Amino acid sequence: MPQQAKTTPSRPRQAADLDNWDIETDVAIVGFGGAGACAAIEAADAGAQVALFEVASASGGSTELSSAEVYLGGSGGTRVQKACGYEDSTEDMFNYLMAAGGDLAHEAKVRLYCEESVGHFDWLVSMGAQYKNSEYEERAIMALTDDCLLYTGSEKCWPFREIAKPCPRGHNLEVEGDNGGPLLMKTLTAQVEKRSIQVEYNARALTLIINPEGEVLGIVVRMDGKEKNVRARRGVILCAGGFVMNTEMLKQYCPRLVEGPMPIGNPGDTGAGLLMGQAVGGALINMDQHFITLPYYPPSSLTYGIFVNAQAQRFINEDCYHSRIASSALDQLGGKTYLIVSAEDYAHPPFMNAPIVGTGENVEELAEEVGLHPGMLRHTIEFYSEHAARGEDPLFHKSPEWLKAMPPPYAALDCTLGEGAIYAAFTLGGLDTRPTGEVLTTEKEVIPGLYAAGRTACGIPRSAAGYASGLSVGDATFFGRVAGSHCGQRSCGQRSPGSETR
Amino acid sequence: MPQQAKTTPSRPRQAADLDNWDIETDVAIVGFGGAGACAAIEAADAGAQVALFEVASASGGSTELSSAEVYLGGSGGTRVQKACGYEDSTEDMFNYLMAAGGDLAHEAKVRLYCEESVGHFDWLVSMGAQYKNSEYEERAIMALTDDCLLYTGSEKCWPFREIAKPCPRGHNLEVEGDNGGPLLMKTLTAQVEKRSIQVEYNARALTLIINPEGEVLGIVVRMDGKEKNVRARRGVILCAGGFVMNTEMLKQYCPRLVEGPMPIGNPGDTGAGLLMGQAVGGALINMDQHFITLPYYPPSSLTYGIFVNAQAQRFINEDCYHSRIASSALDQLGGKTYLIVSAEDYAHPPFMNAPIVGTGENVEELAEEVGLHPGMLRHTIEFYSEHAARGEDPLFHKSPEWLKAMPPPYAALDCTLGEGAIYAAFTLGGLDTRPTGEVLTTEKEVIPGLYAAGRTACGIPRSAAGYASGLSVGDATFFGRVAGSHCGQRSCGQRSPGSETR
Repeated sequence: MPQQAKTTPSRPRQAADLDNWDIETDVAIVGFGGAGACAAIEAADAGAQVALFEVASASGGSTELSSAEVYLGGSGGTRVQKACGYEDSTEDMFNYLMAAGGDLAHEAKVRLYCEESVGHFDWLVSMGAQYKNSEYEERAIMALTDDCLLYTGSEKCWPFREIAKPCPRGHNLEVEGDNGGPLLMKTLTAQVEKRSIQVEYNARALTLIINPEGEVLGIVVRMDGKEKNVRARRGVILCAGGFVMNTEMLKQYCPRLVEGPMPIGNPGDTGAGLLMGQAVGGALINMDQHFITLPYYPPSSLTYGIFVNAQAQRFINEDCYHSRIASSALDQLGGKTYLIVSAEDYAHPPFMNAPIVGTGENVEELAEEVGLHPGMLRHTIEFYSEHAARGEDPLFHKSPEWLKAMPPPYAALDCTLGEGAIYAAFTLGGLDTRPTGEVLTTEKEVIPGLYAAGRTACGIPRSAAGYASGLSVGDATFFGRVAGSHCGQRSCGQRSPGSETR
Repeated sequence: MPQQAKTTPSRPRQAADLDNWDIETDVAIVGFGGAGACAAIEAADAGAQVALFEVASASGGSTELSSAEVYLGGSGGTRVQKACGYEDSTEDMFNYLMAAGGDLAHEAKVRLYCEESVGHFDWLVSMGAQYKNSEYEERAIMALTDDCLLYTGSEKCWPFREIAKPCPRGHNLEVEGDNGGPLLMKTLTAQVEKRSIQVEYNARALTLIINPEGEVLGIVVRMDGKEKNVRARRGVILCAGGFVMNTEMLKQYCPRLVEGPMPIGNPGDTGAGLLMGQAVGGALINMDQHFITLPYYPPSSLTYGIFVNAQAQRFINEDCYHSRIASSALDQLGGKTYLIVSAEDYAHPPFMNAPIVGTGENVEELAEEVGLHPGMLRHTIEFYSEHAARGEDPLFHKSPEWLKAMPPPYAALDCTLGEGAIYAAFTLGGLDTRPTGEVLTTEKEVIPGLYAAGRTACGIPRSAAGYASGLSVGDATFFGRVAGSHCGQRSCGQRSPGSETR
């Protein structure tokens, strides 16, 4: 039987087959994005020797490409929430996130995240992240000023506003424009560099090293063209991002993302972390789920319009979060989505960039141009308009602030995936982990010595319908810290308790 | 480091750790349902020595619990299709199944299945399965007579009728009542017994046995309270069913099925086959997908009614297959589903058993009792009725044979999951396999010596929205045969070619 020459994430290496350890450390971390940086800082602060391996030639990961909003609150409010006049309760935050996650939510993670969220804000500030005591009040996908606090989910929207008292929880760094990601990674990178953490760039993690009992002892990393066996006495933390850049994995798990949507991520989001974890028994869960968005605002005035499907029916309250709308739009039978607005509310949406496929002095003209049933479209617009004029939306409960009659003339934007409108996506599936970051098998047993955080793990955000901006970087930095701290304090060769009820 | 005492599917055993082989054979098959039986027959007919391990004390599996319809056609038609006047083309069958599978479809499997479907029919007949040259013309979930041919999917329904020429492909055994499953398993069991196949009942497969190269050499089976090491020189075929009986796995992968829907399956559908495959590197795919049905007919007269959601909107052509309707119903925002019918079409649906939540001499009375918006419900019924009277359904394209005006009085059945209506479900996720049945890693490499078929593999049926009765037993028996034949002819220690583009 010939030995396979190539080392791939799916084939763990047996420690017994190694000649030697090239590098020895307590904690080995794969990936120097937001999760990896935070894991490294906490592991070092817990007294562990830490080595951080990054495939790119600089830190950053997908956190650097993001706006780096963090979704935080509860415990009476962060310093910014309080300064802006909001008192946020942990229960409201918990109830909101549980409702947003629906039956996919991980209660123990949500609970921990909500309880320690204000502490995480303070920690980020202690690392040098600066947040102004100010609110950004526009309906926006991100704050383009240096203001901090904004609504980034569907908190004020039906049905969530009936489940939990709304509160803005998106925290934007004090920086003009969409420049939060580079600033946050610069801040965290400086903190890593201040500590005696070994950082190896251009270092590709290839596969995990295990012993016959299935414990993870280290990791094989390719550096300078050579495979190096890295011994991680306390454990390995996989913070290597998601798999939105791996077309084969998208075909397997998220076929909808293979063509059409723009991937949001860095070239390292190849799923290697997921594969390495799976190869030693880690369960990949929620693999079909993804964030997908139709960034239809700004301008926020388009929120006065209505989305309709191929049947000219409305299907969503248009004031909710953009990925919730995208997710619902893509589920519609007939595969069509149009945004219909009164001309008085129309302005070109620069991010979505959807083509105008119809205009009309009246509904019938519009319907003919768009190819919708005129009688049905007339009823949909009239029914909506009549109630909206009274501040009511009996079907979808759009908030009164976005309700007004829709007088002609009209314009229709084609928001159908594949017809020109921009959709953008990243993956939400990953390794099943305890709140500590310990990786679990399908049978809910801990794999000793293995942790995951960020999009390599399946974290707080579980679906596009329940997403809020700030959940990914919030989750990655928070659970990166938890994993770093837990792994950093793990006794060498300690076997964690066997199983846990999720 | 203490050895783990318990042998579980997630921990493969290294061949080097064995003292001896207790049983030696060419092909070891786990599970004596439809897939396992067919795999065993073909492996034996290919000249291999075969051992079949079944955890229950008799053959059967979930095939025995089913109606055992098989979905077959193409190549001009099966003997029954031809006798009933249908000429079925392979391309129509292929196009239908590809459209039904949508972006989840596995083209190579669908292609093979369609091309060899008539041959499979003839093989089943050669095994002793009897099919009458007769058609069952009622709209039905299953034929309760001994007639054979019926429509079991959405072939005649929009949008599929525009994609492929409709043809009935469900083949029902010549037996009265819902007794196809026991008859098919009796027939196949007799064929297994005629061959020199070692059959072990009360034998629980525990975990696979591998060598350091990752090749599967055999399987550990518990018989009479003892663990037996089974050497399978040509390979192991996992035909151990799905995971609908494993609550923890449902929580992880199909949370919607944890409470509410009735599981369809046998007690052995614990996911053990999936876990064993995953533990040696097999990729579990499509794990969130499941068959789920709302068996709302018979009586077929209810098809004259309309389904509406919480917004009193229609959402589906009501003439399509029952699991397509259930799937769509469960996706509706607001979480409510009602079936509204004219009293003249009403009769109690014995399988669905949904409660009547409203009746009315007019729409307003009905709307008030049900809790729907009266103006919206009036428009929905009037718009539908007005067009239906002309044989038209401009929104959802229900077939003319099911279109007629809906005069008052009305009745409304509450079909909301959890409100009394019966939903039933089983899982469609499983090991990724080649059409041959060879199990693939996430990196699309074949795991030498490992095969899967039936619901342990991810086969032809991939979603409730695209399901048709007869696809599970059709797929299980067909791909069971393919796997048996391929594994039965595998050279001992042969390493299959490395990878394949899906």
